[in-house]
Order: sequence, then structure tokens, then C-alpha cells
Amino acid sequence: MTTAATTLTGQPLDKAVLDGLLRRRMFYTPSFEIYGGVSGLYDYGPPGTSLQQNIIDVWRKHFVLEEDILEVDCSVLTPHIVFKTSGHVDRFADWMCKDTKSGDIFRADHFVEDALEDALNGDKQAREQVVEVKTKDAKREKKKAKGQPVAVKLDDAVRKEYEEVLAQIDNYNGQQLGELIRKYDLRCPKSGEQPTEPVAFNLMFQTSIGPSANLPGYLRPETAQGQFVNFSKLLEFNQGTMPFASASIGRSYRNEISPRAGLLRVREFLMAEIEHYVDPESGKAHCRFHEVEEIELDLLDRHTQLSGQTGVKRMAIGKAVKEGVVDNETLGYFLARISLFLQKIGIDMSKVRFRQHMANEMAHYACDCWDAEIHTSAGWIECVGCADRSAYDLTVHSKATDKALLVRQQLDTPRIIQEWKVDIEKKKFGPLFKKDAKAIEAVILASTQEVREAWAKELQEAGKAVVDVSGLGKFDVTKDVLTVEFGSRTEHVREYTPNVIEPSFGIGRILYALCEHVYWVREGDEARSVLSFPTAVAPTKVLICPLSANKVFSPFVTRLSKKLRAAEISTRVDDSSSTIGKRYSRNDELGTALAITVDFQTVEDGTITLRDRDTTRQVRADEDAVLAAIKELVSSEKSWEDVEKALPVFSSQETTVVVGQ
Amino acid sequence: MTTAATTLTGQPLDKAVLDGLLRRRMFYTPSFEIYGGVSGLYDYGPPGTSLQQNIIDVWRKHFVLEEDILEVDCSVLTPHIVFKTSGHVDRFADWMCKDTKSGDIFRADHFVEDALEDALNGDKQAREQVVEVKTKDAKREKKKAKGQPVAVKLDDAVRKEYEEVLAQIDNYNGQQLGELIRKYDLRCPKSGEQPTEPVAFNLMFQTSIGPSANLPGYLRPETAQGQFVNFSKLLEFNQGTMPFASASIGRSYRNEISPRAGLLRVREFLMAEIEHYVDPESGKAHCRFHEVEEIELDLLDRHTQLSGQTGVKRMAIGKAVKEGVVDNETLGYFLARISLFLQKIGIDMSKVRFRQHMANEMAHYACDCWDAEIHTSAGWIECVGCADRSAYDLTVHSKATDKALLVRQQLDTPRIIQEWKVDIEKKKFGPLFKKDAKAIEAVILASTQEVREAWAKELQEAGKAVVDVSGLGKFDVTKDVLTVEFGSRTEHVREYTPNVIEPSFGIGRILYALCEHVYWVREGDEARSVLSFPTAVAPTKVLICPLSANKVFSPFVTRLSKKLRAAEISTRVDDSSSTIGKRYSRNDELGTALAITVDFQTVEDGTITLRDRDTTRQVRADEDAVLAAIKELVSSEKSWEDVEKALPVFSSQETTVVVGQ
Repeated sequence: MTTAATTLTGQPLDKAVLDGLLRRRMFYTPSFEIYGGVSGLYDYGPPGTSLQQNIIDVWRKHFVLEEDILEVDCSVLTPHIVFKTSGHVDRFADWMCKDTKSGDIFRADHFVEDALEDALNGDKQAREQVVEVKTKDAKREKKKAKGQPVAVKLDDAVRKEYEEVLAQIDNYNGQQLGELIRKYDLRCPKSGEQPTEPVAFNLMFQTSIGPSANLPGYLRPETAQGQFVNFSKLLEFNQGTMPFASASIGRSYRNEISPRAGLLRVREFLMAEIEHYVDPESGKAHCRFHEVEEIELDLLDRHTQLSGQTGVKRMAIGKAVKEGVVDNETLGYFLARISLFLQKIGIDMSKVRFRQHMANEMAHYACDCWDAEIHTSAGWIECVGCADRSAYDLTVHSKATDKALLVRQQLDTPRIIQEWKVDIEKKKFGPLFKKDAKAIEAVILASTQEVREAWAKELQEAGKAVVDVSGLGKFDVTKDVLTVEFGSRTEHVREYTPNVIEPSFGIGRILYALCEHVYWVREGDEARSVLSFPTAVAPTKVLICPLSANKVFSPFVTRLSKKLRAAEISTRVDDSSSTIGKRYSRNDELGTALAITVDFQTVEDGTITLRDRDTTRQVRADEDAVLAAIKELVSSEKSWEDVEKALPVFSSQETTVVVGQ
Repeated sequence: MTTAATTLTGQPLDKAVLDGLLRRRMFYTPSFEIYGGVSGLYDYGPPGTSLQQNIIDVWRKHFVLEEDILEVDCSVLTPHIVFKTSGHVDRFADWMCKDTKSGDIFRADHFVEDALEDALNGDKQAREQVVEVKTKDAKREKKKAKGQPVAVKLDDAVRKEYEEVLAQIDNYNGQQLGELIRKYDLRCPKSGEQPTEPVAFNLMFQTSIGPSANLPGYLRPETAQGQFVNFSKLLEFNQGTMPFASASIGRSYRNEISPRAGLLRVREFLMAEIEHYVDPESGKAHCRFHEVEEIELDLLDRHTQLSGQTGVKRMAIGKAVKEGVVDNETLGYFLARISLFLQKIGIDMSKVRFRQHMANEMAHYACDCWDAEIHTSAGWIECVGCADRSAYDLTVHSKATDKALLVRQQLDTPRIIQEWKVDIEKKKFGPLFKKDAKAIEAVILASTQEVREAWAKELQEAGKAVVDVSGLGKFDVTKDVLTVEFGSRTEHVREYTPNVIEPSFGIGRILYALCEHVYWVREGDEARSVLSFPTAVAPTKVLICPLSANKVFSPFVTRLSKKLRAAEISTRVDDSSSTIGKRYSRNDELGTALAITVDFQTVEDGTITLRDRDTTRQVRADEDAVLAAIKELVSSEKSWEDVEKALPVFSSQETTVVVGQ
């Protein structure tokens, strides 16, 4: 389902105009722009920073405070060994190819996709069809060949083949992408040459820690590993109680090959990640699932996608878990909570869907994953991932460090375990194998039940077992030093590695999608753009506008500022010489929720006006009444309609002023 | 003034015990400890993260909200050119030397200092004096030789010389440090060899941005540059109005040679920096200075230090500025505001002093600097720097990018400027100098008044001026193509590069110092440590304690949690099987401000008890009354004494329980 993006009021969204507004009002700006900028790096200006902070505040209250999550703040700098263990050194890469003549570097999948789409568009043109410029996911933003696709008609068979390749473009590895490039003779737009064979390009930024250059490190590409390596301490902090969750809000870094999608694909970004640890034998039930089970979500599951469809199914999450569409309660609980969070900050929920990953598109650590995708002008964008990482991470870190990363559960009724047990006759064993004894013993003690059963048979039949010690060779261990017997053992404590459910939020993407969703243009005046952020996340809550720079207004402005600051409500004073209408318009673009005006009547009778951004309607009352109304609006206790019922409506000259601009 | 650190109640501080508590309660923990850790990298656990966040919240309200500062959030990744321009590539370095046998790496100044101090201590021992283990600044933490200094008596002259060297250890460059090492034959503790000649080690972490390896970059060592390069946009955002300030809260990175001072010297840290732009011709006055002028600070100025003294002068900041001890109102305003901030978060103000930098210890960009130093077990620690960076940064960035970074001020009364003006006869000039014309013209247009005056004389006397073009040589420019005349010009707009006053906060250092300042041990029970954070920054505000795991308490606990969460007051439930006393003790160590207990009387009559951490006193009342009291305590509207006056005091069994532990 790729539909055009719309504004808050359902009009077609002009992305260029919105981006112009966001840049002009300094929501964001390319980093180091006076030096020409660096692609994939952006700074947030004052409204962007405040918006981001308010989103984070809501997130922290919605998740950390509400769910009693253990928030941690870990190092971004990470030594090589940690990401070697986690698999990121070997597998966190994209395929890259190069135009050797122009020096252009491409992501190989994007290169193939762009070339085939251009050919298909050319075919359409040749068939005198209208060329459809497909609205694409940010992942698919591309280094376009200049000009239009050449109108060349393709054979029906070729066209079908191209379409099939595009449908599964995410599934090819580097070798396969290289084969596609050669098979279809795909050429670089600038040079007309075939690009180089795709090579893996690791997406982690590398650096060296300390002065001796022998401790290579990376900037983390996710906050998760810092949480995993602290698992045992966090479990202890939680007094050994399961289930529990940790969370982290912080920057992560990915050295994207060729980022060109504004805030949607950047090299440095803010993430908020939760690692929720569950007992895999609990069925991954969640004790607060009943609180969310009625919540309805638009789900796009794996089976639907496999059948080539993209239609969502709207289902209560309780039903979805019951019917097995969503695997378990914990996963379902978080999907519902993610949905509530997005709604709270002002995302248009008709533009949100939850899509299950296909088996071959999941990250190397995930065993199941649902993305919250938000629809924007760049198509459906993955903004929140909710992955079941199973026991992958804790297992690999435990293995690499030889530290137990597990839960010890006191059993109410002890368990009897039937198993093969090994017994080594130490006194003879040592002298017999001398310097190799320790290594052989380690292999014997670490052996699996299957191996032990085989040894038992060998010992019985041949009087000796063959023990294979990696790097040292095979050793005959005779029955006078080794006994293997089947027996029972009573367990009072159960040890297990918990599974991890991980909701992972890309704050920058959510922030950008939110800007698109709350953007609209006042009817009949295209120059009057508005960003209707909910008051809770609006960068500034209240604009204070003296009618003019006349000094008679100053004491009122100062007192109002002071009182609002004391109530921790963010304000900005605009005492510039622009007309009130222009100042309102500027603040509509900044998303400022409310505006107070101080005029000559204020000087006379102490009343001030309060303006609502969305309706442009105003009330007029004395300072105390207006400040009380502001507090109730900011804390969401009251709506603007409530305020209009309580305070006298003021009929504004705004329209006149604006028309006169 | 180096005195031993004390607890909140004035007892000697046992740093090892406090550090043990902070590690055990997971305020902080070495990063990647299961992999052996990386020196200089620490993670904050749940209480540390919450404490840090609360400090940041107070900071944001105290500065950003209160002063209408423009907060920005800029990239950490920074291309080489930016730090080349700022001077960090060439000058942001420490001197490093190496023990070639053991591989140990030293900061050269620390190496010399340690060696000389050991010799002086050995001398003291030999003279049968008591060896004083000097409490040192964190800067001076050191790679100690094992064991005690050898008791060797020094000549009086040598001893005096060593002491003089130590007194100015911050002033030596690498070559001078090398000379000291050779002169005194200083040797590495492990190998007994002289270390290598000191070399400059740049403290910035380097990386490569993008896939092509031709864009080297650094992790920023301060947040300031991101703010400076956005100066023009910020000025425009502020509608051209001066003075104004920007601010940034974010991580910075310094690749310390050998960090060994816990949270006081780390490689990755959180900074909060303000860049306040002022008109250099304004006398750097501040319009809100009158609000702070009565505030008294302990000042240690440059002159006092030059005379070898360390005694502070306690002065009202108004008087200090008036008498020229502090250079200007803006600097003074921020020193006072910094002091108020530190007080607000709970720093013991008797352990704070403001020390002016000596001329030779300032960073390369600063023209004056005062540090807020906080006294801890590691001596006086620089926690906030307040530097006057003059116009340094904006000037160098403007020069490097050829972008104007300046303020255009509309003059009320135009200014008449008398000056030497140049006029080039372009039609002849171009053909005359051909390919060199552009370069020569640029030099002429950029010439200073002094040069122009000299040219005017040359032109008059010799009919030609000699123009020196760097890289191209000298050119004779005759009077038929160049005129230089003295005349007047009317200026309606004044252009100037603003100066920058920069208060820069090391949040991690402040956080650690705070932990020391609020730490104490209950009298008569050394096992009962308490962290008496002010409620505003306490990691958790309220502990909820059911008497036991009996299910009859659950509905009360759930309802209380829910109500406190709704009021955005952070809580933790402890329903573990430990005694109430043990649970209180645990939370005293965590700094939890208040505790609610739900017991059998609660089930009977609905009353709950509320305990104050610092006094261990309790009140008992119904739920609504207690919740109202909590809200008033958390918002600092009421003190515990007020609460005791309003609600019935409950005589606790805590002491009994604790004695029974």
C-alpha cells in the first residue's frame, strides 16, 4: 500500500514546502553546513531539540516510570571483542559497489533496484503509459541517473523477471547482487561502466581507545550490548526477581554507505531501547497483558506478505495473540504499548501499521520481529522495531567471557534429572596424560549427553573411549580412569538463560514522521503553515506577545514570563516589531501551542488574551484566570473547548491583520 | 588548601567504603566489566542514570528555561577541518612518554611529578619525618611505583629545587619535561630505565566518516564547536537580537593517556555547555546582574595564586565585579548562577571555590577563565569552567569558511568613519597583471589601515606601491591603476564579531562530588550509610514497602504505585522478604527520599506510614493525606518538619528491627 502522504487535514503533502519550513525554523539543519556539511549528519536547532526532549520525556514516563524499568546509561565507545562476540564485526554490513571512473559509491541493492526500476519506467514510457514515480521507503532513496529513464520497450518475459527481482531485492547477498549486475549488464549512471563486484562494508565506525593503538574499538550501532553485558548486575539490582527490563536512551552510530534521506537515514542518531527479559518456559506471558488486550492494531503478518499482499488486518491484540498471529503476550503487550506511545505524542494512527519481518530480512540476532511502520512522504518507514532476540546475546557473551549470564530460580518442588554422568579417577588421570590432562578433562566435563552415551557404549565394548580434544588430537581414555553411568540427580535450583524481547525506537525517524503528521496549511492562505503538535510535545508551550515595543507593556511581560517559568512551562517572548499576525504565523510554524497578548487594555484593566494555535480562537480574562487555564491545557486536564466555556471569548483582529500582510 | 574530605555530618570520609556502596548499588560500574573493562569508561546503573537525569533536569530549568537559552543538539562526529580550524588538531594534546621495557605509558607531567614527590617523601622519611600522602587533584592520580618511597636524604638545595619544579608543573612543555627527566635522571618504576622523550599525544578520538576513507573525523572533545558553526542560524532564529545564548547537553570524548581516577577522569562524558554571545563594546554588562549581585562566592584570583597563596576571599559578586576581581558583569552573573545551581542540587557550598586560571594554564581559545572547583577526596576538582573565549572561535571559523559570522547592528545615529580607502582602476588592472590580478586585488582590498597609509606615501613619492602577495612575490602597482586616499564614510550598520562567555559543566564530576557531599553514616551504626540527596535529584522519590509478601497488601501497593506514577513521582516497590529495616537501609544507600509502609493496620483502617530518610522519623495517616504530603515534599513546597506538624507522628519499630539485624 503506497499512497501519497497527506497533511493533518488530508490535503496532499508538499514535502519540499514542509522541509523548507523545518529548515527555516531551525527544527533541524545539516551539521557543519558552513563547511559544506557531511551527509548523514544533522543538528537539531532550538525547536527540534525541545521537541526531541519532550518526546523523550513522554517516552520515559510511558515506559520507564510506568513499567518500573531499570534505566542505564552505557558507553558508546566499545572494545572490538564485544562486537566480535555479538556478531556485528562479521555480519553488520551492507553490500557496496563502486563506479571506478566517477568514484561514486553505491549500496549494491539500491544500485540494482534503481537500474531495474529505471528500465521498467522506460518500458512504461515506451508503451505510452504514464510513468509512475514510485513513492519509496527511505531505504530506497537513491543516487538517480540524471534525466528521465530512456523509453525502451522490454519483452514481457524480461519485464516480469525484473519485477520478480525487485519484489525480493532484500533477499540477495553480495554475490547474487553481483550476478544480477552482470546478467542484466547494469551500468553506472555517470560513467556507463559496470560497477565493481559488491563487497561487504561494515557499518560500524572504528576508532582506537587509549594511546597505544592496540585497543581497537567501535561506536556502538545499538544501545543493546551495553545492557546485555550488565545483565547479571541488573538482575542483582532487581533482587533476583524475574521478569524485568532494562532500558537505555542514547546515541548510536551507523556509517551508512550513502545516506540521502534527510532525518530518515542518518549516521548518528538517538535510540531508546528496552530489553525485557523473560523466562522462555513461561510461555512469555505478561502480567499486565489484560490491560491492553482490547487495543486494536493494524497488523501485516508474514503469511500475508508471503502471499504477495500488503493489506493490513485490524485486530484487538488479545485476539491476535490468542490466534497466534502475534507469538506471545509479552510481544503483544509491547506492540500495544508502542501504539499507545505513538498516539500520545501525536502520530496519526491511521498512518501506522505493524509489519512482521520476513524470515530472511531479520537481523542476525532476531528470531521474530514486528516493526511499527509509520507512513510518510517517503513511504512506510520502520520507526520502532520489536524483536524477540531469544537467548542469543546473553549466550554468546557468556560463552566469550566464561561468565554465567543466567537466572537461578529456587524450585518449589525439586526436579529429578535423569542423565549420563562422568567420573574421572583423578589420581591416575593426571600422571597418565601429563601436560594434556587438563585439556582432556575439560572436554570430558563439557561433553553433551549424546557424547557421554556413546562413550559409555565404547567403554563397555572396547574398554576405552576416544576423546577428541580440538588442537591436541584424539586420546584413548581407558575405563580405569573414566566411568560413564546413567543415573539421577535432584535439582533444587533451576538455571536458565532468559530470552529478550526488545522494543527499539528510532527517535529521529519518529520525530520527522510526527512533523509530517501534524503539518497543515490554513484554508485559503497557503502561506500560513501550522504544526499542530500536542501540547505535551510542543517545543514551546506559550508565546508572550506585547502589542508593540512600547515600554508600558514590559512589566506585564516580565511578570507573565516569571510566573510561567515558575510553573515550569516553556515560554518565549516575541517583542519584535512585526505585526501580531506575523508573530502568530511564525509561532504556528514553530508549533507553539498557545499565545498570550499584552495590549493597551491590559495596561488599563489587567486582562490578557489567550490564543489557541489550532483554531486561532481567543479568550480574554485576567492574568490569574488565563494562567490557570494554561496550566490545565498544558497538563491536558482541559481542552480548548473547556477553556472557551469557562472564559469570555475574545473576537480577534487576527484575520484582518493577516489579510493585510 | 588541601584538607581531608568529610561526610555530610563532618566525619572523615572513607572513600573506599563510599565507592564500594556506589558500585554495589549500581550508581556506576566499569563498562564491559565481564570483558575486563576499559579504563576511563563507565556505565551508570539505574540510580546513577536517574540521578544524572535529575541533575540535567534541574540544569535545564535553571539555565535554559530561566534564561531563554537556545538549546541545540549537534553531531558528535565532526570532520577534521572543523577541529583543524578551532586549533584542536594542533593543540589539544598531552605530553606522553613510554617505558620501552614494560610498555607502560605515562603522561609526562604526571611522571615527573610522581618521581619528584616520591623523592621528597623518601627525603622526609630519611629525616624521620612523617610521610604526608598528599591528597591530590584528580589530574594528579598516578601510576605509582610499587611499595614505599626509598628513604634517601636529599641536599637542601635539591629539595628546594624539586619543590619549585612541582609548584609549576603545569607550565612545562614536552621538551622541558624531557629535560627535567634527563637532568634528575628520573626512571620508570617497573624497569628502572629512563622513559622515552615526551611526544604530543592528541586527545581526540579519530575515525573515518563514510565508506571511502577520505573523510577523516573526530569525536568532539567539547560541544562548543557545534554551537559556533551554527552561530548565524541561531542569531537569525533569535531574530537578530543580541545578546543571546545557545546551550548544548551531550557527550564529549577525550582519549586520556592513562585515566585512573574513577568518574573524575573519563574518556566519554556528559557535558552541558552554554555559549553566551555579547557585544565586546557593551562592557559585557548583563541585564539581570542586579538579581545576583548580593550573592557571596569564595574567590581565589590569579594575583593571590601568583603570590603563592591559596586562601579564598569571600565576596559578594557585585563587589567583585566593581573592584575588578571578576572582569565583567556577564562573567560575574554566570559565576553566581553556577553557584546557585550547585547549591540547588545539593552540593555543600562550604566545599566550593571559584579559582581564576593562571595565564599559562588556560586553554588555547580562552582569554580569561574561572573554574568552579569542588572539594572531594581527590582534592579540589574543576567541575565547571567559565571561560571568556573572546571572539576566537567565530573569527577562525569565519576565516576558514569565508562565511561572515557576525552581528549587524542598525545604528541609531550613523557613524562617520575616517579612513584610508583604496580604489582600483579595474579596466587597466586586469590586463596589466593577467592571471595574478585577482590575487593582487584580494591583498589590496584586505589591507590594513597601516599598510594603506604606507602605500599612499609610496604612491606619492615613487609613483608606485609594492604589494606583497604571499606565494606569488612582490608586485609594483603604479598610481594609474591604484589610488589610496584618506576620506570619510558614513556607516549606518555596525558589524562586529561577538565575544563568547562559556560556562561549561562536567556533569559526571559534579555527580560524583555530590555523592561524596551527601554521604554520611548513621551514628552508632557504621553499616548504615545514607545518601541524603535533595528530593529534587534523588534517584527514586518514594519506596513502597508492604510489610511482607502477604497477598492482602497487594491492592494497596498497586493503587499507591499507580497514583504516584500518575503524579509523575518515581517510585519503587520492594516486596522482597527482607525485614523492613533492611529494606529501609538499602534505600538509604540508594538515596530514596521517602518510604511508605503498608501493614496490617493499613488493611484495617486504610492508614499508611511515611518515613523520612534523613531523620528516620515517620508519620501515619490515611492514603490521601500521605499522598498530598509526598507531593508537597517532592515539589519542595513543604519540609519534613511541616509534614510532622500536619500529620500524626508514628513511633517506628525501625531501631529495634535494625538492632536485631
